[in-house]
Amino acid sequence: MSYRMVDLIQKKRDGGKLKKSEIDWIIENYVTGLVPDYQMSAFAMAVYFQGMDTTEIADLTMAMVASGAQIDLSDIPGIKVDKHSTGGVGDKVSIILVPLVASFDVPVAKMSGRGLGHTGGTLDKLESIPGFKIEHTIADFKAQVRDKGLAIIGQSDDLVKADKLLYALRDVTATVDQIPLIASSIMSKKIASGSDAILLDVTVGNGAFMKSVEEARELARTMVDLGNAVGRKTVAVITDMNQPLGYAIGNHNEIAEAVEVLTGKSTKEFREYIAELAQLMLQLAGVEKSIEEIMAHFDNGLAYAKLLEMIEAQGGDASNLTAPLEVEYELELLADQQGFMEEMAAFGIGVVAMKLGAGRATKADSIDFQAGINLVTKVGDAVKPGDVIARLYSNKPITAELVEEFKAALVIGNNKKEYKEIIEVIR
Amino acid sequence: MSYRMVDLIQKKRDGGKLKKSEIDWIIENYVTGLVPDYQMSAFAMAVYFQGMDTTEIADLTMAMVASGAQIDLSDIPGIKVDKHSTGGVGDKVSIILVPLVASFDVPVAKMSGRGLGHTGGTLDKLESIPGFKIEHTIADFKAQVRDKGLAIIGQSDDLVKADKLLYALRDVTATVDQIPLIASSIMSKKIASGSDAILLDVTVGNGAFMKSVEEARELARTMVDLGNAVGRKTVAVITDMNQPLGYAIGNHNEIAEAVEVLTGKSTKEFREYIAELAQLMLQLAGVEKSIEEIMAHFDNGLAYAKLLEMIEAQGGDASNLTAPLEVEYELELLADQQGFMEEMAAFGIGVVAMKLGAGRATKADSIDFQAGINLVTKVGDAVKPGDVIARLYSNKPITAELVEEFKAALVIGNNKKEYKEIIEVIR
Repeated sequence: MSYRMVDLIQKKRDGGKLKKSEIDWIIENYVTGLVPDYQMSAFAMAVYFQGMDTTEIADLTMAMVASGAQIDLSDIPGIKVDKHSTGGVGDKVSIILVPLVASFDVPVAKMSGRGLGHTGGTLDKLESIPGFKIEHTIADFKAQVRDKGLAIIGQSDDLVKADKLLYALRDVTATVDQIPLIASSIMSKKIASGSDAILLDVTVGNGAFMKSVEEARELARTMVDLGNAVGRKTVAVITDMNQPLGYAIGNHNEIAEAVEVLTGKSTKEFREYIAELAQLMLQLAGVEKSIEEIMAHFDNGLAYAKLLEMIEAQGGDASNLTAPLEVEYELELLADQQGFMEEMAAFGIGVVAMKLGAGRATKADSIDFQAGINLVTKVGDAVKPGDVIARLYSNKPITAELVEEFKAALVIGNNKKEYKEIIEVIR
Repeated sequence: MSYRMVDLIQKKRDGGKLKKSEIDWIIENYVTGLVPDYQMSAFAMAVYFQGMDTTEIADLTMAMVASGAQIDLSDIPGIKVDKHSTGGVGDKVSIILVPLVASFDVPVAKMSGRGLGHTGGTLDKLESIPGFKIEHTIADFKAQVRDKGLAIIGQSDDLVKADKLLYALRDVTATVDQIPLIASSIMSKKIASGSDAILLDVTVGNGAFMKSVEEARELARTMVDLGNAVGRKTVAVITDMNQPLGYAIGNHNEIAEAVEVLTGKSTKEFREYIAELAQLMLQLAGVEKSIEEIMAHFDNGLAYAKLLEMIEAQGGDASNLTAPLEVEYELELLADQQGFMEEMAAFGIGVVAMKLGAGRATKADSIDFQAGINLVTKVGDAVKPGDVIARLYSNKPITAELVEEFKAALVIGNNKKEYKEIIEVIR
């Protein structure tokens, strides 16, 4: 079939439902350049206003999958699981979860992204480990998953070519925050990277992309339906990203925190949270384990051993994973009143961490792996004047302005708030 | 002020009202290329869904005017009037109206466009006069208006640069049919070409861009308010374009029909219609004339003399203006039933005229000035089997398929329909 792009833009603009052949045509011709950016951006804006139904989203996703290479993991024994987070502050979950799940002999083949703005990226954190390689050929990636049972690498450039083009375009045309386009962008990459089952972590709150539980639920539902419609077992958890996840925000310090959890340290709440996510991933692979059985792998060293295996396989030096941060400037932020920590706004704290050097304001910026923040207090904790709330680390002078920015993210009050990371599970 | 285009797209997308400085920034940077087409098309689509208020439309129009040269006609004595039609089939009104108004010593300085698709263009019709030049320098244009009192030339490339870019972009991104963008496109050209007062002919019906009177009224009201807001006296007429205007559809034959009207021939209804439009244009110039006084200029030769003056001034040869069409193929279309002509769909008949060679399917096509259609019957006329409805002229064989296409545009029935060109006047 051949179409005129202007007619398809108009059809969507006027609220029409696009056929599979029409969506295939758009994506095929966008990737070859026959459909120019200026038509694609008008189309994306029409989708912004008119939406897409489940069939259209599934068709769009599969058209995007078909626009690049697809990884075939079928020659690796077992049900391969993957995990994706929509991003947040202090989100080192993959670095803990992937070895933990792999320690139950469930292969995990994961491609990750980099951080931008207030959010960190798993790849940046892994690269803070000296020598750790995130660039792999597809063959090496598969070989490592087969031999070691786990791998976390960068997204291959050969996969989902349409997504790279479309994502860059959406970013500059105010068409990013749109559920059909977000869902197809995420799921096309997950589907192309070949796993049989996918756990989606849809973050919600001021530090996340989705600001309300309703939005997060709609995105989660869309992606779960989409994954299952195309034959990938998919489950989503909606998790709270109103405060940073765990205690460390940065790169090297988040690796250190991941090691703490994997070796049975950190708080019980945080270890339980990771165990609950692991339970869902294991279930996707057909492995039923209790929370206690899972947490046992923190204590018996099996989970941590898997992390070390992955680091070694990817060329990293694991000898200093928990070394203290080495920076020129350190600052302890103290509480100036009595009460309970009621809010620690993840967005504001993420931006401060970025300004300390832990993240990028633009894609071209470089990262200081030693810079970051270690929280001492979290939401619900009691504080009194003089208590340390957080420690800030940087190789640039830490300005009073930045400290004020951090303080602006905090609310100390009289209410002891309950805080639960997992808000709900969408199956 | 400096902005990021993505923020302005998002502001409009979310229903915000853009400030003058924001609109100026968009247009200035679009013309220089700093705002790329792919952002402008997303913006146009956001405007499609969110609209613009009167202030935004006026700001957009004046920003577009400022994007190119502006013609200053202030050194030509008198109130200069201009006229614009939103296009139709058989629309030779300007070629009659401009000399008629000029014959009352009201200077008319008009820039016109070409035809595309089912609609004809005044420039193409004028170019069917051997030697007639539609390309003028601004200086020659002004000199002719000063010396002869009238000129119809092609749109200068120096005027409203933003409109040329934006129009081409809208054409391929399904953002054409949108009142703020149509109004600012039309009015920016009229304002930049320098006349003091403007008569707008907003056509409505199946052969026009606006399909309903409501839409036409909204466009007319928008443009009238806009013109008056920026100090140009503006009046609009909403006219019926459900059937072709007058009897001739083509180029040479439309010039011949214009001459007929100007010399007091053609039907009284058609002459009265033109006289009513002339009355409105004259009023805009502060000249009050009755319909009878105006129609007297058809009979006393003053209006036709002005046409001849213009043709001579623009290098045309007026010796064969009313010569019969010279074509290889002619066909008489006969009525096959008794009754009254109830419909002669302008769109369908315009497309047939284009296929005969009188128009362009794409901008690159050339025109056969001798090809076209002369209607014998119009809506409301009684017909009986064997009566000639129309004569088709072409230099290509006239296929049975094309004749069927023409017939499909006709409805003969039992109702004698009243047909009035002017539906309403918007002041």
